[in-house]
Amino acid sequence: MTAPTDRAAILIEALPYIRRFHGATVVVKYGGNALAGSEVASFAEDVVLLHSVGIKPVVVHGGGPQIGELLDRLGMQSEFRDGLRVTDAETLDVARMVLVGKVNRDIVSAMNVHGPIAVGLSGEDAKLITAAPHSVELGFVGTVLAVDPSILRRLLAEDLVPVVATIGADETGQAYNINADTVAGAIAASLDAEKLVFLSDVEGVREDPSDASSCIRRLSADRLAELLESGRAAGGMIPKAEACVRAVRAGVRRAHILDGRIEHAILLELFTDGGIGTMVMP
Amino acid sequence: MTAPTDRAAILIEALPYIRRFHGATVVVKYGGNALAGSEVASFAEDVVLLHSVGIKPVVVHGGGPQIGELLDRLGMQSEFRDGLRVTDAETLDVARMVLVGKVNRDIVSAMNVHGPIAVGLSGEDAKLITAAPHSVELGFVGTVLAVDPSILRRLLAEDLVPVVATIGADETGQAYNINADTVAGAIAASLDAEKLVFLSDVEGVREDPSDASSCIRRLSADRLAELLESGRAAGGMIPKAEACVRAVRAGVRRAHILDGRIEHAILLELFTDGGIGTMVMP
Amino acid sequence: MTAPTDRAAILIEALPYIRRFHGATVVVKYGGNALAGSEVASFAEDVVLLHSVGIKPVVVHGGGPQIGELLDRLGMQSEFRDGLRVTDAETLDVARMVLVGKVNRDIVSAMNVHGPIAVGLSGEDAKLITAAPHSVELGFVGTVLAVDPSILRRLLAEDLVPVVATIGADETGQAYNINADTVAGAIAASLDAEKLVFLSDVEGVREDPSDASSCIRRLSADRLAELLESGRAAGGMIPKAEACVRAVRAGVRRAHILDGRIEHAILLELFTDGGIGTMVMP
Amino acid sequence: MTAPTDRAAILIEALPYIRRFHGATVVVKYGGNALAGSEVASFAEDVVLLHSVGIKPVVVHGGGPQIGELLDRLGMQSEFRDGLRVTDAETLDVARMVLVGKVNRDIVSAMNVHGPIAVGLSGEDAKLITAAPHSVELGFVGTVLAVDPSILRRLLAEDLVPVVATIGADETGQAYNINADTVAGAIAASLDAEKLVFLSDVEGVREDPSDASSCIRRLSADRLAELLESGRAAGGMIPKAEACVRAVRAGVRRAHILDGRIEHAILLELFTDGGIGTMVMP
Amino acid sequence: MTAPTDRAAILIEALPYIRRFHGATVVVKYGGNALAGSEVASFAEDVVLLHSVGIKPVVVHGGGPQIGELLDRLGMQSEFRDGLRVTDAETLDVARMVLVGKVNRDIVSAMNVHGPIAVGLSGEDAKLITAAPHSVELGFVGTVLAVDPSILRRLLAEDLVPVVATIGADETGQAYNINADTVAGAIAASLDAEKLVFLSDVEGVREDPSDASSCIRRLSADRLAELLESGRAAGGMIPKAEACVRAVRAGVRRAHILDGRIEHAILLELFTDGGIGTMVMP
Amino acid sequence: MTAPTDRAAILIEALPYIRRFHGATVVVKYGGNALAGSEVASFAEDVVLLHSVGIKPVVVHGGGPQIGELLDRLGMQSEFRDGLRVTDAETLDVARMVLVGKVNRDIVSAMNVHGPIAVGLSGEDAKLITAAPHSVELGFVGTVLAVDPSILRRLLAEDLVPVVATIGADETGQAYNINADTVAGAIAASLDAEKLVFLSDVEGVREDPSDASSCIRRLSADRLAELLESGRAAGGMIPKAEACVRAVRAGVRRAHILDGRIEHAILLELFTDGGIGTMVMP
Repeated sequence: MTAPTDRAAILIEALPYIRRFHGATVVVKYGGNALAGSEVASFAEDVVLLHSVGIKPVVVHGGGPQIGELLDRLGMQSEFRDGLRVTDAETLDVARMVLVGKVNRDIVSAMNVHGPIAVGLSGEDAKLITAAPHSVELGFVGTVLAVDPSILRRLLAEDLVPVVATIGADETGQAYNINADTVAGAIAASLDAEKLVFLSDVEGVREDPSDASSCIRRLSADRLAELLESGRAAGGMIPKAEACVRAVRAGVRRAHILDGRIEHAILLELFTDGGIGTMVMP
Repeated sequence: MTAPTDRAAILIEALPYIRRFHGATVVVKYGGNALAGSEVASFAEDVVLLHSVGIKPVVVHGGGPQIGELLDRLGMQSEFRDGLRVTDAETLDVARMVLVGKVNRDIVSAMNVHGPIAVGLSGEDAKLITAAPHSVELGFVGTVLAVDPSILRRLLAEDLVPVVATIGADETGQAYNINADTVAGAIAASLDAEKLVFLSDVEGVREDPSDASSCIRRLSADRLAELLESGRAAGGMIPKAEACVRAVRAGVRRAHILDGRIEHAILLELFTDGGIGTMVMP
Repeated sequence: MTAPTDRAAILIEALPYIRRFHGATVVVKYGGNALAGSEVASFAEDVVLLHSVGIKPVVVHGGGPQIGELLDRLGMQSEFRDGLRVTDAETLDVARMVLVGKVNRDIVSAMNVHGPIAVGLSGEDAKLITAAPHSVELGFVGTVLAVDPSILRRLLAEDLVPVVATIGADETGQAYNINADTVAGAIAASLDAEKLVFLSDVEGVREDPSDASSCIRRLSADRLAELLESGRAAGGMIPKAEACVRAVRAGVRRAHILDGRIEHAILLELFTDGGIGTMVMP
Repeated sequence: MTAPTDRAAILIEALPYIRRFHGATVVVKYGGNALAGSEVASFAEDVVLLHSVGIKPVVVHGGGPQIGELLDRLGMQSEFRDGLRVTDAETLDVARMVLVGKVNRDIVSAMNVHGPIAVGLSGEDAKLITAAPHSVELGFVGTVLAVDPSILRRLLAEDLVPVVATIGADETGQAYNINADTVAGAIAASLDAEKLVFLSDVEGVREDPSDASSCIRRLSADRLAELLESGRAAGGMIPKAEACVRAVRAGVRRAHILDGRIEHAILLELFTDGGIGTMVMP
Repeated sequence: MTAPTDRAAILIEALPYIRRFHGATVVVKYGGNALAGSEVASFAEDVVLLHSVGIKPVVVHGGGPQIGELLDRLGMQSEFRDGLRVTDAETLDVARMVLVGKVNRDIVSAMNVHGPIAVGLSGEDAKLITAAPHSVELGFVGTVLAVDPSILRRLLAEDLVPVVATIGADETGQAYNINADTVAGAIAASLDAEKLVFLSDVEGVREDPSDASSCIRRLSADRLAELLESGRAAGGMIPKAEACVRAVRAGVRRAHILDGRIEHAILLELFTDGGIGTMVMP
Repeated sequence: MTAPTDRAAILIEALPYIRRFHGATVVVKYGGNALAGSEVASFAEDVVLLHSVGIKPVVVHGGGPQIGELLDRLGMQSEFRDGLRVTDAETLDVARMVLVGKVNRDIVSAMNVHGPIAVGLSGEDAKLITAAPHSVELGFVGTVLAVDPSILRRLLAEDLVPVVATIGADETGQAYNINADTVAGAIAASLDAEKLVFLSDVEGVREDPSDASSCIRRLSADRLAELLESGRAAGGMIPKAEACVRAVRAGVRRAHILDGRIEHAILLELFTDGGIGTMVMP
């Protein structure tokens, strides 16, 4: 057990950070890979902690693996192009049910065990996300045309934590499934957020994609853009890195890519001198 | 086409009602039977009309048929006891996905075509509905233990229309599926609503259940309670009638059971001298 | 009697208009010719309807015929120059009594039968209208030097309907009688109103003044200015047309000249697809 | 000229009174007898002074002599019963024009020379005064059935000075002419005013009506009621004295009957140790 | 150095406490014995930490030793009766200069190094503390007659931390020096505080005054009152214990007597499961 | 005794000034020379009068003579350079105790006899005054680096009167003693004050320093700057004159140097046509 002096020391180290981030909006992208029960509970506890010390968190989540699972159970097969699932009306229905009716619910419930603070949203609510089709071939896969953060601001002003499922709708009400990393970045920019945090399953951005020890602790948005152009980011890191670049260029103070496998990674990043993962600055 | 004089006459007949209900909270239960696409659009248009003239609607919906359909597709079979579906964890997951991720979404989208005004909620959001198990044998079928209408009041104060899927959660975060008629009544009571409106598929409460021409136009909550005790209400009418009795006794000014098959039934009930269906008064 | 379906259709046609004009300021000039008792009641009902659906009406009225009548009874004779009554101190006293103490009162009373919503004002109240003499020969006939809409904004913010008699005062407190059409336009501009509506006794602006069938349904402020310059507007239409041009150029979205002899002309103009009379646009 | 020390002394004597009455509502009844031009200007200046040091004045006025004058000019003859003018519809019209359109205007204008602070009201505005007939024989002479001070509170909250003409209306909108002393008392009671001040043309209430030197400086409402019952008040003093008794019994802290012929009588009463006239206390 | 897991664990242990005390008023009595420079800095840091996580601290301090020191330097001798210093006008002047002009300043300055958050107050400011003489013999030693917490509430509402020197004044403006423990209790009661915390130089209330190991961890106000009556509290513990009893009985939720010699004692008491010192409950 | 007419005349002369200065911020520098008991009471009464008629006074004071007195009693000797006292840590401690703990208290107490309106502040409170060393040789004598008027604005918004002792602190919390004339000017500029008033012990700025009859009634800031450059101001007048020039150039409407020996000098300056002393304009 930690000695009283050490306990006090840790609380006191956290002080300037707690003060600095008081009232700050922090958008957290929570990945679909990390949604086993106990992890959701741990993640929810962290978000509740941020909220309880005056930070205004906004959670954005995907759910690719969970969508695939239900499609399998329904015997529906998907075609993929460039790594994106071709989405017809029926597939979209399944994706929406899973994202809004299952993943979103699991996160909201895990947080509300601590008090009435989380509210689940889809991008369709109060026209939060206006979507456009990504490309004709992909069907109802969408891109972000516009974000209207009014409903988020209203909920944040009421001291609630919005949890956003990344379904958007176009002007006719047609729904689209959108990449959650992209949505997280767009929401952070629309809210002029202090921080955008990605909880990924790697330790951060690597100088050399094949070398786990080459993780970069801090870099500028311009430098990250160069890395992207030089093709040195791969797979799921690409949309995260792109979202970081865009968000920081749009005014978000700091973007972070953290290793979500480390328990309480957000707390350690925000409240200790060390920090963890990769930080992207203007 | 209606003549100018008649047009003016209808607008003017509507005037005292529009004035009387300005700012009034009206809880509308929208049934799962009436969820084909065009009907949702028509229903959504009516709610948007109420909203645009200053009424504060709250929509509560079920979705039994849609849940049954997905269970069928997944090859999951349900046992029924006293007309209620025995609900294990997996069935609950399906029910929640359908209610929150499909039915709720369809209603919200249909309304938001008219502007950014609808926000979908589950009873789990911000601890809106605290549930308790209905009985041990039924598994995760719940009853309403408490309603905390804070999130509804906040959204109404922001001029938004809450659309509520009737999933509740207990203190540990465990979800339950709850009868939507019951939830509608409890929400109306918790909001001290002006009106509680059920859109059903019959013309109203009948003096003689087997005689469609015996529809009662207005009766007191006490008289309706007597009808219930005498066994003269049947099937799906029972939870609606019970909810009407409880809501009116708890302070709701008027409860209505309307024939949702008549297009724009709500508008005709609220804004014309005639009214339609059955009205329950204190 | 209109069928339920038609009733619903009319309510639904009105919906987008009611929504669009919610919260909008609409300045209505009500003419002195139309002040017989039953007409005032009908006009008042229309304004109360606008108010009850969230529109913010401001009524401006004149009262030339009524002034003439009292002058006659008092045996006071007036000289006219260019169609304007030469107004000495005693005549002004009579005009003020009639406008503020009779016409204004009749309109306010007719509205307040429906609830405590109308408040009568003279341009002297809270320095609403600062006047200057129109010309030396005309005595206390004034022009509008400045409008301070503070008192109007305060009353509108309290959900009240200001009814304005068009007496103004200069810095020394000296009162002047001002043309009501001109005042209506100046007030609409000062409030950045959505609409300025003149209730006249013709069907609208005519392409050919002598041809009642040449009524123009919509035209631009510039086109209307041309018509004025070319001398194709006559008599009482001139100050109305001039006020429309000035108001639209000053930012008022739409100005209308309607035929006040059609019952409920305002309702039909605002809430039906057809519209009536002449609409002036930027 | 007063010496600096004396000037300072007077300012300092006024200090505790200015502080005590800051924010206090003071209802002032201004009589029709005192409405010659220069007197109105002097009265208006006094009210503006009260307003400028944070007092919230409400002015109530009559105008009997002015009404009589216009009736004479129109050749209309009046019958009197118990000192009250029998008022038919035409007489009422004249009374209303004079009170609302002339006397009220003169007072408002005189105040607004000093800034945009006065707003004229009739008891018909926003249902300020609900009237009932005084008696069948007297026609449209009214009594006060109810006062709804909402519009007064709104204007006072906006730092404006309401000037009230004592016309009231019944539920059908029918207007009545009401004794101004009675209205002043009812308004003071409805506003829970600090003071009710009558500016009369005598030096105050007399112990002996025929002895000008028997003026009573201060007495209780009960004592004044006794004087009234014993018949020792006469003529115009009766409604004033009755209004004082009723207002003080309804919670008004102090009622005053001052000699309005003394210039700046209100200032001397409120801001100097001496006071003048008769003060009625609980 | 503490491991990441332990760091996270400590932050997470603190979570429910930080949430529970968010917005709570905590009155802290800081003793004169503990005013050496480094201790003030450490104490100030603790208070700033409480403030930064949303707690509303109010600091109350004495300064007996510092007063004695300046009296010595000035060659002024004091007589003591029942442990209280007989205080003539000159002694009071010295006490006030030391408390308000030195001790209060040192605490305020130490806090404001962290930001513009502390504001020094004397009980004379805005009539915070109305005092009465303690007894004739003691001169200007006062007791608390009344606390008007308005100024404290205003500063707390502005997110500032009041630091109160315990000088009070009577209605004539005459100042008195008052025991700081008593003032702290009275202020906590007047603010309906969540907690009253005494930082003393012993480990807490002892069952047996002579036995340091008999410290009581938690007891009721009634039990503490019994201990006081039985004479088992001694010296400086008496006013602290009395203040605890009175404050808890007046509605303060918890009163604590902590050992101020332990660094960061407040943090450990508030934010860890263990707690330290003696807690007094209703 | 002054006659009623004269009393009324004086009140009425004061009217336009009271109205003009309503809500205006007036910074008053009160000198250390004028701190004998009865004078403080008279000064306090004047400030309370200003406050009671809606002016927002801010009092700034020094206390040189009182500091010297306590240093003498403590046997501490001071060295002076260019008229400024070399201030070591111990001297600073004494200065701070005297200014904050004695002079400030005396002024606050004298005002609060009239009601809970004065709040004493040091420049250290809420970082009101950030100081820098004046010069190395003078030790803890400071100059004004920055003024953060937030705490003053907050107290003024709450209708309180701040009384400021002119101690400032640098970023490390180190305190400095600063010339009160300079601080008064800097505070007036930071508050965009209507007026800056110095109560001195001469009749005003002289054209010829040696000729008391050459007092200048009004001059521009530029003209005063010329007088300063030409060396025609002497002694304590220099910092006052410099502060006037700087404040007026920074936007303060008027600066005044009055003879504080005339009783109620502020009242006579503000509220009478004559005015007294020297007025500095842009």
